[in-house]
Amino acid sequence: MKRPASLAALAGLVRGDLEQVNTLILERMKSPVALIPQLAGHIIAAGGKRLRPMLTLATARLCGYRPAAGRTPRPVALAAAVEFIHTATLLHDDVVDASDLRRGLATANAVWGNKPSVLVGDFLFSRAFQLMVDDGSLHVLDILSSASAIIAEGEVLQLVTSNDTATTEDAYLDVIRAKTAQLFAAATRIGAVVAERPEAEEQALERFGRNLGIAFQLVDDMLDYSAEQVELGKTVGDDFRDGKITLPVVLAFARGDEAERRFWRRTLEEQEQTEDDLREALRLLRKHGALRDTLARAAAYAEEARADLRRFAAGPERDALEEAIDFCIDRGY
Amino acid sequence: MKRPASLAALAGLVRGDLEQVNTLILERMKSPVALIPQLAGHIIAAGGKRLRPMLTLATARLCGYRPAAGRTPRPVALAAAVEFIHTATLLHDDVVDASDLRRGLATANAVWGNKPSVLVGDFLFSRAFQLMVDDGSLHVLDILSSASAIIAEGEVLQLVTSNDTATTEDAYLDVIRAKTAQLFAAATRIGAVVAERPEAEEQALERFGRNLGIAFQLVDDMLDYSAEQVELGKTVGDDFRDGKITLPVVLAFARGDEAERRFWRRTLEEQEQTEDDLREALRLLRKHGALRDTLARAAAYAEEARADLRRFAAGPERDALEEAIDFCIDRGY
Repeated sequence: MKRPASLAALAGLVRGDLEQVNTLILERMKSPVALIPQLAGHIIAAGGKRLRPMLTLATARLCGYRPAAGRTPRPVALAAAVEFIHTATLLHDDVVDASDLRRGLATANAVWGNKPSVLVGDFLFSRAFQLMVDDGSLHVLDILSSASAIIAEGEVLQLVTSNDTATTEDAYLDVIRAKTAQLFAAATRIGAVVAERPEAEEQALERFGRNLGIAFQLVDDMLDYSAEQVELGKTVGDDFRDGKITLPVVLAFARGDEAERRFWRRTLEEQEQTEDDLREALRLLRKHGALRDTLARAAAYAEEARADLRRFAAGPERDALEEAIDFCIDRGY
Repeated sequence: MKRPASLAALAGLVRGDLEQVNTLILERMKSPVALIPQLAGHIIAAGGKRLRPMLTLATARLCGYRPAAGRTPRPVALAAAVEFIHTATLLHDDVVDASDLRRGLATANAVWGNKPSVLVGDFLFSRAFQLMVDDGSLHVLDILSSASAIIAEGEVLQLVTSNDTATTEDAYLDVIRAKTAQLFAAATRIGAVVAERPEAEEQALERFGRNLGIAFQLVDDMLDYSAEQVELGKTVGDDFRDGKITLPVVLAFARGDEAERRFWRRTLEEQEQTEDDLREALRLLRKHGALRDTLARAAAYAEEARADLRRFAAGPERDALEEAIDFCIDRGY
């Protein structure tokens, strides 16, 4: 049996660079206002995989970037900027509204932490731009400031489609392209920029990142309904309780009969949920093959990502990035 | 009797430029996600005076900047960026925590709007950086990304000192230097940057903006306890109800006896307030001359601002900026 793909090869490839990224992150998180490194350190430590910065580091190597001696390599500084933007987004995503509180969803932490989360997110976002300014490339600044605007648009779009069972598959894809895939696309494109590769390679890496990001988010949304997650100590059904309309729901709703649609409308639009509703939701998702088909769509985007990656020279960098694609899909099985 | 100073001369001076700023703001606020221009338009329209962008426009003229024909003048684009950063800060400042809700302070709007406010703020913040990238000056990007980080630090520091009657005058000044004066300083410094003036003039305009910003915020904090505001249709005592420790309170607390300090601790630290407490707070502030002395300190910072402004050539630009200084103080009387 084939060993499931992991991020080990990618992590091994960029280990030294990533240590520098982590050092830089700790350094740039500093502030005389103690709450800032406390709160930022908490989320950055919890943030985990460092997938986005690893993508910047690995694509730079794929493109033949070799660091000049003495100074911090450009991909290291820009990978830290990418991670700061990602972390700021997470912090701002944690913000809760009174409507959420009313549904009894907020954790104590989230309840007390709205304002600090927002402000520390702003701080990290500013730090990201300072890192880019130090790097000195207007082209990179253009890529990441545009990505940030699109991410914010995607988050607002998600808010607008939240609780709306009329959301189409296209509208859902618009959301995840913007809120997730755009930062993946920027992170990988920067690899070509720092290596001063031609525009066509920038574009190829941008498509690679975008398709990988879409696949990644599709699997994430599927996993939120996957019972196996419980064994991994993760919670199931967060999106369901939040009334988020993700692809599994879009598919099940489209394929359901009128009674089933009433169920989705009651639980997701009107947010009237009882204890057994998650179980029923899982049953309907299985009945219509919604999780399986979400995963199939993710696999299709992964293949698109692979096609663009294969434009680049074979070698350990390309192998590691290919395994990262496999990892994004395999964790869905 | 002397006519009270106003912003009329400043507004008259930059009228044409400011119209271009407003057009640019409307254009860059656009998004296929309709909620973004809706929400942003609401706060930008309500935002009012456009003091910060006017400062960028007027200092650029003061430094002899003359727009090249055909393209958007640099001060116009950068003034729009400054206003976007200011607006993003306002939106993020509106975010409320559950603790605020418990005190019954939040308006319905604030209660329902946390998440959209944060995300639209992020969008405007990103748009600000896109405008700077289009402008193409890494120096300006440096000034405004650093200012943004410091503003966020100041906002967090304000949060930390909130409800703490042990806050010193120095700590309070640290907060307003960061959260308010830093953006004024950046806005005015940019005037010298776009006109390609020597570093010493950049520094002089930065000090001018910083001192003006401190004076502006001191008067703002004083006005929050000024009964005359009621006649202007503004509310009094918002800071008191929020438990914010501003200079009037710092002074009255320092000068008060033990019973008075118990009063401040109960109302601001423990947030136990009854209907008559605001009246009592106003009595104590008057008794100790706290509002008068806050205004006197503001006037001292205004004089510092004036001293740096007078390094520049006399003329309608300097006159208009001097009257803007006077305006910041006169509205306190």
